[in-house]
Amino acid sequence: MKKYSFKNDYSEGAHPDILTKLVAVNLEQNIGYGEDVYTNQAKEFIKTACSNQDAAVHFVSGGTQANLIVISALLKPYESVIAAETGHVAVHETGAIESTGHKINTVKTKNGKLNSDAILAVLAAHIDEHMVKPKLVYISNSTELGTIYSKQELEAIAKTCKANDLLLFMDGARLGAALAAKTNDLTLAIISKLTDVFYIGGTKNGALLGEAIVINYPALQENFRFSLKQRGALLAKGRLLGIQFLTLFTDDLFFELAKQANHTAELLANELAVLGYDFYYEAVSNQLFLVLPNELIAELAKSYDFHIWEVVDETHSVIRLVTSWATTTEQIDGFVERLRC
Amino acid sequence: MKKYSFKNDYSEGAHPDILTKLVAVNLEQNIGYGEDVYTNQAKEFIKTACSNQDAAVHFVSGGTQANLIVISALLKPYESVIAAETGHVAVHETGAIESTGHKINTVKTKNGKLNSDAILAVLAAHIDEHMVKPKLVYISNSTELGTIYSKQELEAIAKTCKANDLLLFMDGARLGAALAAKTNDLTLAIISKLTDVFYIGGTKNGALLGEAIVINYPALQENFRFSLKQRGALLAKGRLLGIQFLTLFTDDLFFELAKQANHTAELLANELAVLGYDFYYEAVSNQLFLVLPNELIAELAKSYDFHIWEVVDETHSVIRLVTSWATTTEQIDGFVERLRC
Amino acid sequence: MKKYSFKNDYSEGAHPDILTKLVAVNLEQNIGYGEDVYTNQAKEFIKTACSNQDAAVHFVSGGTQANLIVISALLKPYESVIAAETGHVAVHETGAIESTGHKINTVKTKNGKLNSDAILAVLAAHIDEHMVKPKLVYISNSTELGTIYSKQELEAIAKTCKANDLLLFMDGARLGAALAAKTNDLTLAIISKLTDVFYIGGTKNGALLGEAIVINYPALQENFRFSLKQRGALLAKGRLLGIQFLTLFTDDLFFELAKQANHTAELLANELAVLGYDFYYEAVSNQLFLVLPNELIAELAKSYDFHIWEVVDETHSVIRLVTSWATTTEQIDGFVERLRC
Amino acid sequence: MKKYSFKNDYSEGAHPDILTKLVAVNLEQNIGYGEDVYTNQAKEFIKTACSNQDAAVHFVSGGTQANLIVISALLKPYESVIAAETGHVAVHETGAIESTGHKINTVKTKNGKLNSDAILAVLAAHIDEHMVKPKLVYISNSTELGTIYSKQELEAIAKTCKANDLLLFMDGARLGAALAAKTNDLTLAIISKLTDVFYIGGTKNGALLGEAIVINYPALQENFRFSLKQRGALLAKGRLLGIQFLTLFTDDLFFELAKQANHTAELLANELAVLGYDFYYEAVSNQLFLVLPNELIAELAKSYDFHIWEVVDETHSVIRLVTSWATTTEQIDGFVERLRC
Repeated sequence: MKKYSFKNDYSEGAHPDILTKLVAVNLEQNIGYGEDVYTNQAKEFIKTACSNQDAAVHFVSGGTQANLIVISALLKPYESVIAAETGHVAVHETGAIESTGHKINTVKTKNGKLNSDAILAVLAAHIDEHMVKPKLVYISNSTELGTIYSKQELEAIAKTCKANDLLLFMDGARLGAALAAKTNDLTLAIISKLTDVFYIGGTKNGALLGEAIVINYPALQENFRFSLKQRGALLAKGRLLGIQFLTLFTDDLFFELAKQANHTAELLANELAVLGYDFYYEAVSNQLFLVLPNELIAELAKSYDFHIWEVVDETHSVIRLVTSWATTTEQIDGFVERLRC
Repeated sequence: MKKYSFKNDYSEGAHPDILTKLVAVNLEQNIGYGEDVYTNQAKEFIKTACSNQDAAVHFVSGGTQANLIVISALLKPYESVIAAETGHVAVHETGAIESTGHKINTVKTKNGKLNSDAILAVLAAHIDEHMVKPKLVYISNSTELGTIYSKQELEAIAKTCKANDLLLFMDGARLGAALAAKTNDLTLAIISKLTDVFYIGGTKNGALLGEAIVINYPALQENFRFSLKQRGALLAKGRLLGIQFLTLFTDDLFFELAKQANHTAELLANELAVLGYDFYYEAVSNQLFLVLPNELIAELAKSYDFHIWEVVDETHSVIRLVTSWATTTEQIDGFVERLRC
Repeated sequence: MKKYSFKNDYSEGAHPDILTKLVAVNLEQNIGYGEDVYTNQAKEFIKTACSNQDAAVHFVSGGTQANLIVISALLKPYESVIAAETGHVAVHETGAIESTGHKINTVKTKNGKLNSDAILAVLAAHIDEHMVKPKLVYISNSTELGTIYSKQELEAIAKTCKANDLLLFMDGARLGAALAAKTNDLTLAIISKLTDVFYIGGTKNGALLGEAIVINYPALQENFRFSLKQRGALLAKGRLLGIQFLTLFTDDLFFELAKQANHTAELLANELAVLGYDFYYEAVSNQLFLVLPNELIAELAKSYDFHIWEVVDETHSVIRLVTSWATTTEQIDGFVERLRC
Repeated sequence: MKKYSFKNDYSEGAHPDILTKLVAVNLEQNIGYGEDVYTNQAKEFIKTACSNQDAAVHFVSGGTQANLIVISALLKPYESVIAAETGHVAVHETGAIESTGHKINTVKTKNGKLNSDAILAVLAAHIDEHMVKPKLVYISNSTELGTIYSKQELEAIAKTCKANDLLLFMDGARLGAALAAKTNDLTLAIISKLTDVFYIGGTKNGALLGEAIVINYPALQENFRFSLKQRGALLAKGRLLGIQFLTLFTDDLFFELAKQANHTAELLANELAVLGYDFYYEAVSNQLFLVLPNELIAELAKSYDFHIWEVVDETHSVIRLVTSWATTTEQIDGFVERLRC
């Protein structure tokens, strides 16, 4: 029997509405390279969702692609990125940022979140031309550890960036899950105001593929399509990305899907808390980091797929459980049942 | 009224069979990053179609991405690419190859095709460490001018490459159209034998997106997934590419679609020849380069979209007409009708 | 017996005054990395020579290093260089510019010199984001073919650059020879006014090594030392470069040495013209391109070193003869004698 | 009055023997680009000193240049460097390695020295194609903290590298000081056997500029001059580097100068130890890291130049004192006198 997977939020295809729309307009002729009517409309919907008509919106295929294009478009050769040690760009992108020529200055954090002190410490350690010049702050929301930034936290970081002539870039591969968290007080509009550029992840929230890069700072918008093309990100049938984001930003589908993912995660978290299990990082979005005895992990692994995240002690480890818009409460119940015995 | 477009072969979505398959398996859970069952099966189908079980197959989103990843994975920093002046990598990819650090040595050609003399001339001009070291020959089939390579021509190039320790890479963004040409005598198996690496274009032959990179030379296969990831080409939902190529290589759909595209081009070419119009390059695949009076071009442009390719003389220009699997004979008839008057 | 070399202008060491100065201050302690008193004084002397107190001056080890640092510091990843096909960056630097990520758009020329028409033609051919964006015009003075730019020619190019938002960069590896040419009407001051950045070559005009980069455009001056350090160009004992340029720009030594080099070239050219020999390119600076019968070339090669530049016809070739500040009139006489017989 | 500088070992010019030799052969004509007779002879001397006739030797201008050329020549785009957090490439080269596309995986150390455990820990953390592939181990000897590797330590690292298919590269900017240390048991011959490539620093041991790269592993030797040229490191007057290393490796001058530097450091260290001062890192080569009260540091700074290295506690800091072949015992005595009071 096939195992059920809590490994990630991209195990299934797309939300059915997206496929329905793709099929509906399939034989229409459209201009290539993202200048079609659907892509343009999707851009408008996203600008409206961000309450920022001056933003520029571009669609790319995935998160690593978004990160490497944005960062290499913004920095001069000797400028570097400040990121959490756990940041996606720092460990999980095969040196994609360095391959465009830029160093990443990493910072240890408790929960995957950067703060002003950490940023200022990096600046203080980079004092002359024998070292790189830190210029861009990279944060992920939700982070790689499932945690989220509050409005106050983001404002503080943005202020530090402004005061120190740093650019602020938010990786939003899981931005839906962050915004749908119960403790969240950020909105797309606020993020669009506080960051220079961020992206809205589609792949992990119902799309087949696609991330929407939102460039807020006017000076950064110029010639961005050159950057897209040069890095191999300008799809001939750009409509594929446009149609998906158009669907996601029609009737708040994007937010609904994220809520659904967080809802099943919350169900799971609540049940497990009742059963006395501990979470390694705060459980607020669709990623749960559960501390379990190694024996129990081995038993669960017979029926479920998940990542073993890290070792806690000789007899315990952390596993990561990820829910998505496609996760059913039946699956949650089944999993909890296993932990009850 | 909307104009009909002969601008390119990626104006429509995907062949309906592809969408049907995507919908059919949509809610199945699958492993991410191209290790799912559909991608694996598609790879097997393609290896079989190439009669090369030792090949390694990888899927990426588009042609520029395929080109930049393959070339940067193969070359040392000081090694260069030999390409026709009209080669896609040389002009139409925003310096994507150079952005990975490599020079392109371009060669003037009559019809977009390289040959051994041209390759040897480049080698003869690069004699020491003050110049780049040409190491990879890049050819497109069909070329950017719609022409195709014969078996004899490809064998001659392959022989020159072997004799001079050069790698041979074929850009197959429009390989379907080349193989479906009436004068073609190449097969995937022969190409797989003669080249070190090539790719099979899906985007321009019925897929939503996707190119299948076929690496024939064993030494080049190692760690290719690192290269894919580093350049942002490893899709989380890799199944999207796998399912499409699985469909294209089931029941020869890939070849059928290419034939269909060439068939409407041939119809068009024959009718226009009868009417006395000239072609600037040999009309053998799905791209036609038609010489027309500028006034007639202006008139046609009211009802049709197409590229004005180049100026012939003061009163004539060349327009490019491209057909696809989705082009109907009605549209061909309508266009010819306009030229008849 | 050792052959005498007309191969280039860097066969000998440094002008004795330079060595004398190096020896004189050898045991003085100085700050490292080009912040010493000699380097600072040399910078002031050069700014004065350029009548441009707002310029920023930096010293590097060689021409390729100067070219790759300047160009990569100025361009965004998708921006390209316009250069003559014979430009040093285009052929003789092992793809150094491309290795920093930038394409070079080359232009055929008659005599190694660019002009506005050629520049505008490149711009006209680069129309959208599928192609690189030409942004910097690279010219060499004197050129790789020994020719020089007149004031009028440089003004025309500068005007075209300004009008089209292009940067203008002059490679002055042999700027001394250009400025010392009899037909020259440019000065350092004029060049400093018309270009955004240029460099003054020391290596080929009396120094052991060293080029002085003069950045005229204020916005380009910022953080240039970061670029120097990142590319490995910031010498720990930067005084080595400073002391040399200080010596060269004391009592016009730089100009004297160039005059001397041109003077022996002129002697040689005059004698050869009298003898009826032809020059392939105009003989105005310290590089002569002489057309000779192949048999005579073979004979001369027994006693002299020189480059065989290119084939003219079946029985004639062009040889390049280069003089320097160290070339003696005795050597010129000896060489002419051989051609007289 | 000018302060005396213990800031580094490159405050003076070159050892007088070097200048004498430069002057002696100054007007001889020589072939350019490092193919002259002096450079060739210097290469032979170094191969003999390394007891390795199969090595390839190349000269470059400085340490950052050596590091970036060697590393970028050895690695594939997705491969990374393992280095100590304090390694020169990691912090003090303005991202030079990253600018060639490669990530550096840093490791915390106590004393600037890597060991097998640290290397294996990095390998263990890099498990698949979503992360870079560590491929080269970078060590400095002496380290940036003045410590040195023993034969046993280097053998252990070399063994780990071999067992894990890693390349071993030793940065020898201060290799002289390491080999001249009293506790040293390494030789050039042993280093040449145990590493794949290393370099012998001239700049910090008596030369005007220059590092000798010794490539031991035959496969790495191929086409290295292409890499030199592409990165701007091939000097037209390559003789400048050759003559210097020829002088340094005549009559063991290189080793004598290093001994002299270490000798004055030892004098200083012994006197300070007697006076009861503490060293932050073991004092074995020409770099001393002295813990002093901040007030005393302020007082000393009036007469001496040195780096304040790091803060120890509220009232104490570490200063770095560096001696060179040019440091006199009078200066040592004078400095000690100040600390005596």
